[in-house]
Amino acid sequence: MSVTKIDRAARIIARCREIASHTEISGETTRRFLTPPMHAVHKLIHDWMVAAGMTVHVDAIGNVRGLYPANTTKSPRLIIGSHLDTVPNAGAFDGILGVVLGIAVIEELQGKHLPFSIEVIGFSEEEGVRFSTPFLGSLAVVGNLYAETLARKDRDGVSLTEAIRAYGLDPAQLPAAVLSDESFAYLEFHIEQGPILESEELSLGVVEALVGQTRMQFVFDGQANHAGTTPMHLRRDAMAAAAEWIVAVEDYASSHKGLVATVGKVEVSPGAGNVIAGRVTASLDVRHAEDSVRNTAVAALTAAAKSLSAKRTVQVTFVTQLEQRAVPLDPSLTDMLHTAAARVGFTCRRMTSGAGHDAMILAPSVPSSMLFLRSPRGLSHHPDESVLPQDVEAALATALEFLTLLGDDKSKLKDGHA
Amino acid sequence: MSVTKIDRAARIIARCREIASHTEISGETTRRFLTPPMHAVHKLIHDWMVAAGMTVHVDAIGNVRGLYPANTTKSPRLIIGSHLDTVPNAGAFDGILGVVLGIAVIEELQGKHLPFSIEVIGFSEEEGVRFSTPFLGSLAVVGNLYAETLARKDRDGVSLTEAIRAYGLDPAQLPAAVLSDESFAYLEFHIEQGPILESEELSLGVVEALVGQTRMQFVFDGQANHAGTTPMHLRRDAMAAAAEWIVAVEDYASSHKGLVATVGKVEVSPGAGNVIAGRVTASLDVRHAEDSVRNTAVAALTAAAKSLSAKRTVQVTFVTQLEQRAVPLDPSLTDMLHTAAARVGFTCRRMTSGAGHDAMILAPSVPSSMLFLRSPRGLSHHPDESVLPQDVEAALATALEFLTLLGDDKSKLKDGHA
Repeated sequence: MSVTKIDRAARIIARCREIASHTEISGETTRRFLTPPMHAVHKLIHDWMVAAGMTVHVDAIGNVRGLYPANTTKSPRLIIGSHLDTVPNAGAFDGILGVVLGIAVIEELQGKHLPFSIEVIGFSEEEGVRFSTPFLGSLAVVGNLYAETLARKDRDGVSLTEAIRAYGLDPAQLPAAVLSDESFAYLEFHIEQGPILESEELSLGVVEALVGQTRMQFVFDGQANHAGTTPMHLRRDAMAAAAEWIVAVEDYASSHKGLVATVGKVEVSPGAGNVIAGRVTASLDVRHAEDSVRNTAVAALTAAAKSLSAKRTVQVTFVTQLEQRAVPLDPSLTDMLHTAAARVGFTCRRMTSGAGHDAMILAPSVPSSMLFLRSPRGLSHHPDESVLPQDVEAALATALEFLTLLGDDKSKLKDGHA
Repeated sequence: MSVTKIDRAARIIARCREIASHTEISGETTRRFLTPPMHAVHKLIHDWMVAAGMTVHVDAIGNVRGLYPANTTKSPRLIIGSHLDTVPNAGAFDGILGVVLGIAVIEELQGKHLPFSIEVIGFSEEEGVRFSTPFLGSLAVVGNLYAETLARKDRDGVSLTEAIRAYGLDPAQLPAAVLSDESFAYLEFHIEQGPILESEELSLGVVEALVGQTRMQFVFDGQANHAGTTPMHLRRDAMAAAAEWIVAVEDYASSHKGLVATVGKVEVSPGAGNVIAGRVTASLDVRHAEDSVRNTAVAALTAAAKSLSAKRTVQVTFVTQLEQRAVPLDPSLTDMLHTAAARVGFTCRRMTSGAGHDAMILAPSVPSSMLFLRSPRGLSHHPDESVLPQDVEAALATALEFLTLLGDDKSKLKDGHA
């Protein structure tokens, strides 16, 4: 990289770290939806946006939105966004990197205007920490923030509506937060939050789909008994049943491409070393980019739980706690990101996102795309979360090339989207 | 059974239930070492013993001891015993049944004296609840109650020595609690506390050995990670490793006769449904009547944990928390119990005890034997613990026949024991 390019990547990283210093809890980065430190974040973003030539406002849900006009009036609009909030004790890049990169894209235009406008949005909420429901910022811009959600209360008993008012915003203005009809494409930069790009020594990934997800709870009921006096053939060991199933879950997922299945929570009762387990409660989390693959997996894994439990005279019951369909991203934009990366010298891996992102909420309303940046050690939601300067530069260069391709292709894309 | 025999079994059961009513906690049976309700138990046992023709005293550890003299002076002595204390919220038979049956044996002699004396001992402590160390009563009679144990404190800060004094006994008299040199044999009746006899529709079992036991703790250290963004081949899933090992533990034990191996306690960290397990802590309890089989099993199961973890880049560490050798019981007495049962019409299964009993403490000092009575539903340490009248009658009839055989064989047995 040239000195200039190192500088611009370093500046983006420094800005993310500066924003990370604005926190509810000193010594760590914890910044929930519309908590006091968000004012300073809005101010920083506002100032950077204005300096880059954008007109800026904060909408009624607390999204900070900067508009960089096109070179013509009544032009289509590209949205670039990601989120401003964090999980508790977070890193400095999850979410905010996508906003800072969006502003950097505008800065790199150096006042040059394109045949489309660009709106950079810092979504005020994505992680779901304060109100136990995620995507509040992006739901507002697609008009899907309903009364039920607005009535939710945080742990202090403050409703979402009250939190908006307390921050100095007006809930009555929420309808005005909805995206302009001119919006024709959405781009989100985000750290991968996984180890795939690092394991393949790649800087960038382009997301083809966000996985669908099923979360279930299984209960294995056997018979608690004396570990010394109960011979193996007379046991109804709930832990042995659960263990056999956990191995089957791993085997199944490992042999189906793109599928992940996880048993991350296991509780054993009575849980004494000299007592055979009477009951085991175990979680199951299954994800895949194709709903049919996920549904087949869930059916196979519940059937496995039933059949191996029946052999042991262990009862198994299960309940589905969450079921979320996969969200495909726009193939044309995805291809264009891939091409743009190649043109500036990067192999951009096609991949699925195993986590949810604002793009998942935007995609049904606006053709959407996502560019992943490598996550060193696969770390995220952790103070050690990081990003490499060379990958930030790769993302910025790819985005600038993407704008060129998008300009060339603008009219075609626009026609393709009603 | 004749009406008389039904009556005598019913009386034994009724006595056990009467003793169960003496408890520290109303509405359940909880009777720890030398707690106030033990006074009433001592009184009941004392009165039954005296009525049966025995001379009775309580020794310095709180064992109630009744002596039924032989038909000659300086005669050898048979000890029949089990324990008076209970676990919290116990049943009515674990321990006390062996004492009440011992008294019933004397009653059935109806004043007839044998060529050996019989001492029936109600051991004051076996379960280890009050001082977190078991076998206090039997350790005292074999002279193995040491200062370290006497200094132990209960949850209220009362030392064992103080507890003895508070009950009205004199710790200085502990040496006098040691068994008479005349003791040549020990017999203990006990409920099986397991499902084997019931599963084979048998009333009685004769114990050939009390199993040796190894208790260990294993820690599997993988890498906690996002359940959605970490593909299967890049995981270091501690729960999957532990599950594979738990299945291996069960497989190994199931394929080695008489071996039991149990993973009864499993703790997963961080323990969230959408996070791959970073660390799993799991117990291992291995028991067998032959120490060599147990030791080979422990070696195989630790090797399995190491090799399957290594394949997954999961670290495994383990520590041995308890190692206890197997205790064989006396083959001659064991054969004699088996023969006695057959003579009165019962198939007496030869078996090992998976749990510890007072016989384990007596066996190194006195040739020892144990007779198990079927445990309905395998239940023990539970208010629903029970015993069938027909099995109590079988045990009593077997014991009386055993006394006859023992009388015939007395001199031989005595010579066999230095």
